[in-house]
This record gives sequence, C-alpha cells and structure tokens, in this order.
Amino acid sequence: MDPDAFRRYGREVVDWIADYFERIETLPVRSRAQPGEIRAKLPLKPPETGESFDAVLRDLDEIILPGITHWQSPNFFAYWPANSSGPAVLGELLSAGLAVQGMSWQTSPACTELETHVLDWMLDMLELPERFRSSSAGGGVIQDTASSATLCALLAARERATDFVTDREGCNRPLIAYGSNQAHSSVEKAVRIAGLGSERLRLVDVDGQYAMDASALESAIEADLSAGLTPCFITATVGTTSSGAIDPVRAIGEIAQRYNIWLHVDAAMSGTAALCPEFRFVHDGVELADSYCVNPHKWMFTNFDCDCFYVADRATLVRTLSVLPEYLRNRATDSGAVIDYRDWHIPLGRRFRALKLWLVIRHYGVEGLRHHVRRHVELAGLFQGWVEADPDFEVITPVTLNLVCFRHRGGDATSQAIMERVNDSGRLFLTHTRLDDRFVLRLAIGQTHTEQRHVEAAWDAIRAAAADVAGE
Amino acid sequence: MDPDAFRRYGREVVDWIADYFERIETLPVRSRAQPGEIRAKLPLKPPETGESFDAVLRDLDEIILPGITHWQSPNFFAYWPANSSGPAVLGELLSAGLAVQGMSWQTSPACTELETHVLDWMLDMLELPERFRSSSAGGGVIQDTASSATLCALLAARERATDFVTDREGCNRPLIAYGSNQAHSSVEKAVRIAGLGSERLRLVDVDGQYAMDASALESAIEADLSAGLTPCFITATVGTTSSGAIDPVRAIGEIAQRYNIWLHVDAAMSGTAALCPEFRFVHDGVELADSYCVNPHKWMFTNFDCDCFYVADRATLVRTLSVLPEYLRNRATDSGAVIDYRDWHIPLGRRFRALKLWLVIRHYGVEGLRHHVRRHVELAGLFQGWVEADPDFEVITPVTLNLVCFRHRGGDATSQAIMERVNDSGRLFLTHTRLDDRFVLRLAIGQTHTEQRHVEAAWDAIRAAAADVAGE
Repeated sequence: MDPDAFRRYGREVVDWIADYFERIETLPVRSRAQPGEIRAKLPLKPPETGESFDAVLRDLDEIILPGITHWQSPNFFAYWPANSSGPAVLGELLSAGLAVQGMSWQTSPACTELETHVLDWMLDMLELPERFRSSSAGGGVIQDTASSATLCALLAARERATDFVTDREGCNRPLIAYGSNQAHSSVEKAVRIAGLGSERLRLVDVDGQYAMDASALESAIEADLSAGLTPCFITATVGTTSSGAIDPVRAIGEIAQRYNIWLHVDAAMSGTAALCPEFRFVHDGVELADSYCVNPHKWMFTNFDCDCFYVADRATLVRTLSVLPEYLRNRATDSGAVIDYRDWHIPLGRRFRALKLWLVIRHYGVEGLRHHVRRHVELAGLFQGWVEADPDFEVITPVTLNLVCFRHRGGDATSQAIMERVNDSGRLFLTHTRLDDRFVLRLAIGQTHTEQRHVEAAWDAIRAAAADVAGE
Repeated sequence: MDPDAFRRYGREVVDWIADYFERIETLPVRSRAQPGEIRAKLPLKPPETGESFDAVLRDLDEIILPGITHWQSPNFFAYWPANSSGPAVLGELLSAGLAVQGMSWQTSPACTELETHVLDWMLDMLELPERFRSSSAGGGVIQDTASSATLCALLAARERATDFVTDREGCNRPLIAYGSNQAHSSVEKAVRIAGLGSERLRLVDVDGQYAMDASALESAIEADLSAGLTPCFITATVGTTSSGAIDPVRAIGEIAQRYNIWLHVDAAMSGTAALCPEFRFVHDGVELADSYCVNPHKWMFTNFDCDCFYVADRATLVRTLSVLPEYLRNRATDSGAVIDYRDWHIPLGRRFRALKLWLVIRHYGVEGLRHHVRRHVELAGLFQGWVEADPDFEVITPVTLNLVCFRHRGGDATSQAIMERVNDSGRLFLTHTRLDDRFVLRLAIGQTHTEQRHVEAAWDAIRAAAADVAGE
C-alpha cells in the first residue's frame, strides 16, 4: 500500500469511523451474536493472494459489526467506562503511523520524553504528590493496565522486603499481601504470578460502605507478624470495581509506614475525579503511598490502553525489572542521563502511548475534562434520586461519584431478570455484582457522549422491564 | 470532537502520515536529539483550556518529529525490524475507533472470535502443529510481546511442575529454567518476575554458530536432578536477537519430553520465515513444544504490538491465570462454550488487535507476504557477499535469514567507530552485539520498504566510514 493508496483508504476508514459514531445509538448495545456465529462467517483458510480493501470494509460491516458490543455507545452502562474520544483515536493513529519503539530513550527520544512530561502534567492535573514527579526520586510510566501496574508494584515491594534476595534466589519465605475483600481481581492474579501464592493474600474486611476497615488491616498484620510471616504489600483501592468504594488511604498509609510495608493505591477507576477540586477527597492520604495508578483509559477520554503508574522510589522499581543485554547498550543509556522505560514494566517493546494522552489533554484542556467528569457525576446523582424515589427499588450504597449500585426490592431473581431483559433489548447494557450476597445492578456513567436523555431512557427501560417481569 | 470534526481532522492526520511515509528517507534515521531537548520545548504546565488541532499538528512537526528514531525508514537496520504497513495502521485505527474491550467473549464476541480464527490461519500459513489449533486441546492468543508470552509460558510450566501448589502457597522449592546463553533477556526477566530467582536460570553453552548445545542442556538437567532440584522450563530460540541463531528444537524437544519439562519455543524474530516452504526448517521439531510464539510485529508488516502465542494444553494456562470476580460473570462464560481471553495473559483489559493482523493477511495474501520475506532474505545474502568480498571486513556467523553479523578486521574499536560514524550521519542506523567477546555489527533487513538500493547505500556508507576511520 503506497502513500497514495494509504491516503485514499485512510480517508475511507476515517469516514467509516465517523459514520459509526453517528449511527452508534441505533445499534444494539450488547452484541446479539451467538457463540461461534462470527467465526462461521469467516473463510476457513487465509487468502493466498491479496484482496481489495473494499472487501475488507464490507466484511467489517457485515461480519464484524454484529459481533461488537458497543463500549462507546452513550447507552453503555456496564462494567466500567472505557471511554474514548476523537483526539485519542487520532493520537493512536499517529502512534501507529510513526510505529516507533519506546523501549530505550535512544530508540525514540520523543517517545520517552513526551511520556515523562505528560505524566508530570497529570500530577498537576490531579494534584498528586511531588514524590511522584520525574524531578524527584520517583516518577511515572504508562502501563497497559492497572493489572500490570499492580504486578509491578508488588514485584518492587517483594524485592524491597527481601533486600533483592528473591530476585536472585527465588521466594524463600512466606511474604504476605493485603487488600480489602473488594480489591480488584488483579491483586490476586499478581500475588499468584509473583510466586507468593494466593493463600498469602489477606482479604481484609470492609465497613458498611465496602471500604477497607483499617483496624482489621492492622490486626491482620499483627497476626501475621506473630506467626513469623513477612508482610510486604498493601493495596488500597480508590473506587472499587464492584461498588465504587474508596478505602481510607490515609489510615491505611499510616499503618503501612508504621510497619514499613509497601502501599500501592489503585485509583484506576476514580482517580480521574481528582481533576475537579471538589472531588479531590479521593486522593486524601496518597502522599503516604509508595506507588499509585490511575487509568485515563477508563474515565479520561483516552482509548485503551493507558494506565498512568507512579512510584516514589524509581530506583527500586528499575532494579527489580532491569535487563541490559549488550544489543541494547548505547551511549545515552551508558551516560545515565536518560530514562529507559523498558525497565519500568514487564514487556521490552512499547508503543508511543503518550501521544494520545497528550492529544486528549490539549484538545479538551483541563477545564474541558473537568466539565465532562462533573456532568457524569451529576447524572449519577440524578439516577440515584430516581431510584430512591421509586418504592420498588433501592440504592445499595451511597453514590460517591459515577457508579450507582441498586436493586429491585423483589429480590435477586427479579433484579437479574430485569437486567437480562434490558440487555437483551439492545437499548442499553448494564451489568451486576454481588454485595453482602445480594444480586446488585450497577449503572456506571462515564461514556464520553452520555447525556441526560440516555440516563432517562435507561431508567425508563429498567422500570418497564420491572413491570414486565412482575406481570409474568 | 463531533463526527464531522473527526472526519476533518482524521483526514489531516491520514495525510500527515502519508506525507511522513513520502519524506521518511530524507530524515536522519536515528534521532539527533540530546537528552532533555524535547521536554525543554514543551510547556511546563498542561493547558487549562482546549487548543486547536492545528497547533497539535504543528508541534508534531516541530517538537516531536526531531525526537523520532525512524523505525519505518527503509534505512533502518538496527536492533530488529518492527515493520508495519498501511493495512496494519488502518487496522489499528479501526480498533481505536471501535474501542471495545476483549477481556471476555461477551464484551465483544467478534474481538474474541476473529482473534481465534486468525490465529488458526497463522498455523496454516506457518505450517505449525495441529496441537496449537483452537479445535484441539490447545490454542492461541495475541499477547503484547514475546516477553509476556515467555512469562505466561513459564508461569504455566511452574504450576505444571508443582501441581499448582505454587499458585496457592508460593514457590516452596527451587525450580530450574534453561535457555542458551544467547536466549533473549526476557527469559531472565520472566524467571525473576515469577519468583524463581535469576540464579535458577541455567544459561546453557552454545555451539560455534551460537545455537544451544543440546548435550550441554541434558548435562545441566542431570546435574540439577542429582542436586535435588526441579527442572521445570526450557526456552529454545528460533532466531536469537544477537545473531539470528536457531536452536536445535527437535533435539531439545526430545530432552524436554524425556524429563517432562515444559518446552517453550521463542520464534519471535524468525518464525515468520516459515511463510516460505524453503525456510520451514526453522520449525523443525516445534511439534514437541508445549508453547510457541512468533511476532507479526517484527517481520510480518503488522505494527507493534502483536505477538501470537500458542499452547498445546490451554487448560493449564487458563488455570494458571484465571480470575472470575462476580462482576465479570455472564451467561456465555457460565455456559463454557466461549473463550474468555483475559485468562490467557497478564492484564485484564485487551484491545482488538486481531483486526490489524486480519487486514494485513487479507491485503497481502499469503503469497504477498512470502514475496517480501524472500526479498529480505535475498538482500541479506547480497550484503553478506559484499562483506565477504571485502578484505577489510568479515562475516561472523553464517547468515541464515535476514540478519548479517559482521565486523571490521581492524578490531573492536574500529568497528565501533564505524558504527557511530554511520549512525551520526543519519543516513542509516545499525546496532551492535558482542559474540565471543568481540564487538560485532548487526545489519537486520526487514523494513517493509527496504530495497536493494538502500542496502547498497548502507554498504557504501559503511565502507566510506571505514576509510574515514582508517584515515584519522
């Protein structure tokens, strides 16, 4: 495909995406495909000779699109937002066009330096502590996901707790990790990957609002110490996936400092709220953390993947993950004057992900980003009010930001039947969780183009489904 | 950015990339930026209000481009190819436009099913064993990088060797991993991440062509068994990064089977050669492997990241990495009739990466891909001939595919001076390695648009630099 053909087909793809944005509300939000249905439409064998681009675009419409669950629909309220925006998409396109490797500074200095710079910007935007700034002993890096960030934090914690003996000789004693029983599943995954073992993870009790009980954490640490075990890692969550709970980071941080345990703050979902001064309570105590992450690919209009991960002590992280084979050596690396991001995460190669974050921040400006975040929180508050005003429904836990957890008073089966009915309708998509062993519906508001009319329509559909279920 | 604005700016970005492709040969291949130079041009603080897209495009030219090392230049011969192509870039654009999550089948059935399907296609294209096909007990998944693939393979091997005790209780005995002393640095990184410890990695001796000595491997295994240690993982490399060496996979596989050790084949660099029947020797013995990976993002015109990772026993991999919190449960997952790829890798979220691989295969057709791979191998052969014919230079190890390792007979300092001179010139970019403690230049041919004239110009520049160095 020569540059002229790229120009032509590139415009067709841009138009296809713009058309997709324009018609997205007409498509069923959750795909109606049955297992195997998409594959059955694809040729069994790869083509021996090249096909026309038009054929590909046709198959995109006819085969792929019916198998898409539309995460960018304003009627998508499931799981968590993974929102995107025009500037983010174009940033990703530029990154793919340049197609550079960011593993070392030398392999594209702009890729490394823009990343460092934009991550420093994020500290200003979210009023995060100075200890995470690149000019301090700490710094930030873009990871693919919060799962990877948690794993990297745990690995650095493991080495700090064992003075890098694990790194050389393997894990030779029980190391203990802590998170609330509402912590993300990636904490357990990280504990297993790092070789601690799932039984070394303490799932600490939560309070009535599903936030970690700090005194229960301290008791667990004391019990482990008495048993001769080595506490090494605590995760505090700012906005749990299940219900949006915010752990008491300050109280947890004071405990972490007292016992010299690495504290990681997982603000993947809710850290973005700190763009707005009125929501900066989410970061209370974060200056006590050894590491922190927030995902612009959730709620900051930057398409997946873009997790901003910070550490207060970059030397420990880099020592934990550093490799330097001869074929990667170069003058800049040897000078010590540059950052080589390959030593800040699991993979070696890396994309130029800072471009899309840079484009998003510049397109919206900080005030523009705040505007959208505020609107989402306001819409969640409206929805909460409607649920509270309806005698058939109840809100399960106070709505702090943009996630509403609620249920039908008719019980689990009724709530589940309502969910399946609205999801099958294609008009919206929402998902569930379990809290105190009750089936709970979750309405997460955070899509870039969700407006009041979409939230109103969702509530109408939910109530209509409840009436239908009651009538069956 | 509404759909109309996206249409307008999207075209501008497409044009910018097409222009970039057209002028790429005029740009110095390795960036001439000094440490800190890019950052110094960026505003200290993020913008409070939104900026125009034109301002962003201007900064792209004036600030970012001088900090780019042009991996897509036909004069890029450094490290390894990370080639791309028009259809790949447009596939990435489509993926960013749809912006779906592929963590579960339900979160976008097409994302999962196209991935499974295209990975089955790759088996046909590379004549890989049936045990990796989705209809067998095995299957494939797209990982970001071979580093992550190696880690996932090691984790599954660790659990198979310890009957999942490590997963629950942590690593409670010394587990041993093996690779040649030319194996990729990611093997050591994986061994450290998984909690085995770097001292548990045996770097096995190589033969005169830098391929693993299988008898040395067997001796090492015997010695470890005698010492009461548990061998659990072997990596064989098809195309080492340093010199393109191909380990004797069949002999290694027979040893792996005899001792019941997990064999992972890392064909990240050279597996693509198997598109051509005449190069299928690279896969001799791969049917003895428990896992395998190849990177279309290296040599198959698919922009980073796209690593195809296969296992023969998916149940072990999935059990090793599986998490299923309540908020991810759904009817399709509960039915057991679908693949949920989140359990096949480290992160939870995942992009729709199969799209770009699908577009590349359809655009080129298998025969078109073969054509380019053959041309690269042919050009490497030509270059090898020129080096051999020049009394001042020598080829260090036989050229099997597309990497030429050579040096100036004047010694290490001369070779290094030549490299720095040509790289500083901006006319091409090549890097080095060390083999038998000699400084060796590496010319890797694999950029999508590299033609004979670029390789000729590279050789002219190298010889001219040698003359200049000799005259100093």
